[in-house]
Amino acid sequence: MPAVLRTRKTVTTLSDGRELIYFDEIGAPPRTPLPDRRNLPSVDLTTQMRRDLLTGEWVTVAQHRQTRTYLPPDDECPLDPSTETRLTEIPDPSYDVVVFENRFPSFAGLPGGEPVPSEAGGPMFSQAAGIGRCEVVCFTSDHDGAFSALSPARARTVIDAWVDRTRELSARPGIEQVFVFENRGREIGVTLSHPHGQIYGYPYVTPRTTTMLAEARAYRERTGGNLFADLLAAEIAAGERIVTRSAHWTAFVPFAARWPMEVHLYPNRQVPDLAALDDAELDDLSSVYLEILRRMEGAYPDSLPYIAGWYQAPVHADRDLAHLHLQVISIRRAPGKLKYLAGSESSMGAWINDLMPEDVAALLRSVSVPPA
Amino acid sequence: MPAVLRTRKTVTTLSDGRELIYFDEIGAPPRTPLPDRRNLPSVDLTTQMRRDLLTGEWVTVAQHRQTRTYLPPDDECPLDPSTETRLTEIPDPSYDVVVFENRFPSFAGLPGGEPVPSEAGGPMFSQAAGIGRCEVVCFTSDHDGAFSALSPARARTVIDAWVDRTRELSARPGIEQVFVFENRGREIGVTLSHPHGQIYGYPYVTPRTTTMLAEARAYRERTGGNLFADLLAAEIAAGERIVTRSAHWTAFVPFAARWPMEVHLYPNRQVPDLAALDDAELDDLSSVYLEILRRMEGAYPDSLPYIAGWYQAPVHADRDLAHLHLQVISIRRAPGKLKYLAGSESSMGAWINDLMPEDVAALLRSVSVPPA
Repeated sequence: MPAVLRTRKTVTTLSDGRELIYFDEIGAPPRTPLPDRRNLPSVDLTTQMRRDLLTGEWVTVAQHRQTRTYLPPDDECPLDPSTETRLTEIPDPSYDVVVFENRFPSFAGLPGGEPVPSEAGGPMFSQAAGIGRCEVVCFTSDHDGAFSALSPARARTVIDAWVDRTRELSARPGIEQVFVFENRGREIGVTLSHPHGQIYGYPYVTPRTTTMLAEARAYRERTGGNLFADLLAAEIAAGERIVTRSAHWTAFVPFAARWPMEVHLYPNRQVPDLAALDDAELDDLSSVYLEILRRMEGAYPDSLPYIAGWYQAPVHADRDLAHLHLQVISIRRAPGKLKYLAGSESSMGAWINDLMPEDVAALLRSVSVPPA
Repeated sequence: MPAVLRTRKTVTTLSDGRELIYFDEIGAPPRTPLPDRRNLPSVDLTTQMRRDLLTGEWVTVAQHRQTRTYLPPDDECPLDPSTETRLTEIPDPSYDVVVFENRFPSFAGLPGGEPVPSEAGGPMFSQAAGIGRCEVVCFTSDHDGAFSALSPARARTVIDAWVDRTRELSARPGIEQVFVFENRGREIGVTLSHPHGQIYGYPYVTPRTTTMLAEARAYRERTGGNLFADLLAAEIAAGERIVTRSAHWTAFVPFAARWPMEVHLYPNRQVPDLAALDDAELDDLSSVYLEILRRMEGAYPDSLPYIAGWYQAPVHADRDLAHLHLQVISIRRAPGKLKYLAGSESSMGAWINDLMPEDVAALLRSVSVPPA
């Protein structure tokens, strides 16, 4: 049974018309949202999707993103709560978790629109408006915090926000896939250090998901089984790449890891997306995800840049083939050394990993983490 | 008619058994190669390919690469010629262009072997030995040089070496695709600053090439035409993204560019690979390629990291479908700012570009370059 979320939502609107949603923890004082006093000019959005005929994939051009906020000093962080003397993206003086529409989105536009491809430039030049939704999720008002430093209760509030946004964006016409993710660390280009993640509502099924589902379809035709579930079972049986298991979740370094640090986290039950998890699975997730991040950061205490991304089923297709899971990847290959995607990966898509997945799993198991 | 190469080859062997080939320009004094006096220990190669069932792709694990030479000081560069007091990878005191087997290769092994997949670990864990060939190509003995600073005659010698290696590696059993490329710039992780490129002989057709050829096959079935040739013709007809044209080559920023700086260079005639170019095309290439690099570096004089990669037909398949071309890409999106592959690109394969391809083409056309 889908979970009952434990947060209290308060919806408001920023001065340029963008939506902002407070997710307060149960027991927090009632909130009457303050108005945004900034009189923000609206950003001229010029998002366009173009079809790359060499791969069959959409590429998005979002020119207005060139002017986005870039590594602001700590005392100008737009994700801090507002104060008497400084107005930020969040009008209120405090928050638990807050979600708002990105001011410099890769995809934008009113709900109800679906991109209509145009070949006005000729059949080799197919394009469409980049209609979709990009949201920012602030995990805490503590500028110097990190997801890994949240309490399990706050982690659950963030996860509840993910579930809520997955449900809401999935219901909007034109959105085909909801992607919940966190980019963490300056080494991977994060332009705001305040702990936050993002949510993309894509107007198409992403290339990686399309590839995975094609493999899963072929696998089902060949064997009758579910590719993801069978892989999970095989990793559990092999054992040597398991990082941790809980009542409802299993984390492992995959047999064919591409990144020097890569952990996959699967619910033990096959579900299409975050919105389908039940209450016990969500509670369990808040502890096991904290444990994974703490093990990863514990393995490289100096700095572990990472990307954590949720692989969810498309909204309108293949929901029985897909299997919700999280992939946390890092370019850290050693203290002081990063993995770069050079010619083989960037040009040919041919991945070379310098680390044995079994060794990485053993390293992660060896990190001692305090209980969440 | 395939070109007659203009270089004189001298083949020798390094102390650990790796092959080294001098490509001297016509008119250079005769060479009697000096022996390698280093008594190098051989590197324990542990290259393994693993099948990623979620994508159907091979991922290579090359653990010994963790110990590769990393950002050595200028006076310890292993790609300089040897001197009386310092022995490097190149035993002779001078060279024009030199190619040798990489000491820390992603693929290695004797010719004649083909990888035999093993499912000893069970059907979900298919693996094979990473048999193939990785070579280093030094463009000049000038440690502080750059490809863009070569003379057209030297550029032609490098190109002749590419042609020679494409021919030779294509003839080796087990090699399915030859990839000629250059990674340039510390920002993309280049660990040796000496001007050099690389050549990979893969034991499989790479994922990107597989995808492109599938699209080209579907396009031919749909239209009867060649996808690459029709795209080239459409870009020439559109005109606005053309960077430069010569007698035999056309360079443009593609309509659906993924990277903030991306230039594709096509021969006007459809050929499968570098080995099929004729003498006039090779001569022309040495000028037009220098012009492209000079325009790109002229656009961002402070620093332009780039990856230049040749898309060649597989050795044994689809040689009529493929169309040789070069893609030069850069992560530079503005002075002082780089494009990073974060969640959308790294996890979902969904690309967001902040720059309009038409603007990038105009920028490149506006750079004034001295004639090569």
